[in-house]
Amino acid sequence: MVALNLVNRLNKRKQASDQVSELTINRLSVYLRCLNELDVAGTQTISSQALAEQFRLNAAQIRKDLACFGEFGVRGVGYYIKELRRDLRQILGLDRHLRVVIMGAGNLGLALADYPGFRQEGFEIAALFDAANEKIGHESRGGVPIYDIKALKRLARRERLDIAVIAVPAPHAQPVVDVVVVAGIKAILNFSPGALKVPGDVKLKSVDLTVSLESLSFYLARGKETRG
Amino acid sequence: MVALNLVNRLNKRKQASDQVSELTINRLSVYLRCLNELDVAGTQTISSQALAEQFRLNAAQIRKDLACFGEFGVRGVGYYIKELRRDLRQILGLDRHLRVVIMGAGNLGLALADYPGFRQEGFEIAALFDAANEKIGHESRGGVPIYDIKALKRLARRERLDIAVIAVPAPHAQPVVDVVVVAGIKAILNFSPGALKVPGDVKLKSVDLTVSLESLSFYLARGKETRG
Repeated sequence: MVALNLVNRLNKRKQASDQVSELTINRLSVYLRCLNELDVAGTQTISSQALAEQFRLNAAQIRKDLACFGEFGVRGVGYYIKELRRDLRQILGLDRHLRVVIMGAGNLGLALADYPGFRQEGFEIAALFDAANEKIGHESRGGVPIYDIKALKRLARRERLDIAVIAVPAPHAQPVVDVVVVAGIKAILNFSPGALKVPGDVKLKSVDLTVSLESLSFYLARGKETRG
Repeated sequence: MVALNLVNRLNKRKQASDQVSELTINRLSVYLRCLNELDVAGTQTISSQALAEQFRLNAAQIRKDLACFGEFGVRGVGYYIKELRRDLRQILGLDRHLRVVIMGAGNLGLALADYPGFRQEGFEIAALFDAANEKIGHESRGGVPIYDIKALKRLARRERLDIAVIAVPAPHAQPVVDVVVVAGIKAILNFSPGALKVPGDVKLKSVDLTVSLESLSFYLARGKETRG
């Protein structure tokens, strides 16, 4: 019965996963972060309402997002935290070890290499790559080695590399992305401003840090209007 | 006539700005980024359709988001790029100079201090703050000075500081946020993992870099399912 439920849920999950939006996926990550905290604190179960209240989320949205992937939670009990955490990790593909390389060993690349959140969720930062001779052969404070960018293709042939993070200055971003694509890496997280081109079978996600600052700016401007 | 239109639009904007979602604001930032590129390229006007196609956005969404703030664009012409750019900057509160301080002069803080996108949109990175004696008195590669965190309150009294960016390790985040709040800064951008507490009149926005990696992980897992 439990096994059948799981099969049903996984089938449902498979069908659903093609239609869910990137925003839903982002929210699943946020839910997972909350469940991690609750799990560490020793909490066993939680209702969507309590989860929403504790982490300033939306209970209806939580239920709707989870419904894309099957049936979770038990009426009158809520979610079993360890179980939902395991399911979310599986949905997000975090149940297998993902190997990440960071292109660019400047301040941003070094900061990302040692960012504690990545390791916590099972991402392994396998290496940094740079073109500057004085950096090659050294490592980040956390011990991630810095290789010559020319060695990326060779490393990618020898070991599985899942995701490349682009942390180079804007003028170098497209050439570096081209190197990553040639090396056969199919997922790219870009921190460089400006548009980048990738082939259709490569997933590119850009993080624009300015967007976050601007939404604070909007809030400050609105606050002024309301007060004055 | 033009003046009356502007007054109408600004009134509409004022009413609307209380109800628009953070996602709309984030998208306005993205539109602004696209308009900047078009402006630099010398383009004069663009339709929502062409804007969407060129930057892989959604034309209906663009029109809906802008409609929250008034009437933009001219039937049969599209948007005047310079004009819409100016309006978006005003809506986002970027028409005034915003002063930002960064708490923590580690790799992440130093990377953010010299992040070119911030300066481009009119944010001034006024200072970095750290508690480590060996960093205080130095500056970032781009010339942002590093001060003693104990000097924040004094600086905040002397000069207007609009936004504080938290770039310290997780265990220091809450105490540093408390210092920022006491200094009277009303907007905080947090890069540290974990939940933080602020008073009701302070706007806190957290950037979790793991979320972006996890959405790539989901894509990779789904790609595997579809292929195999």
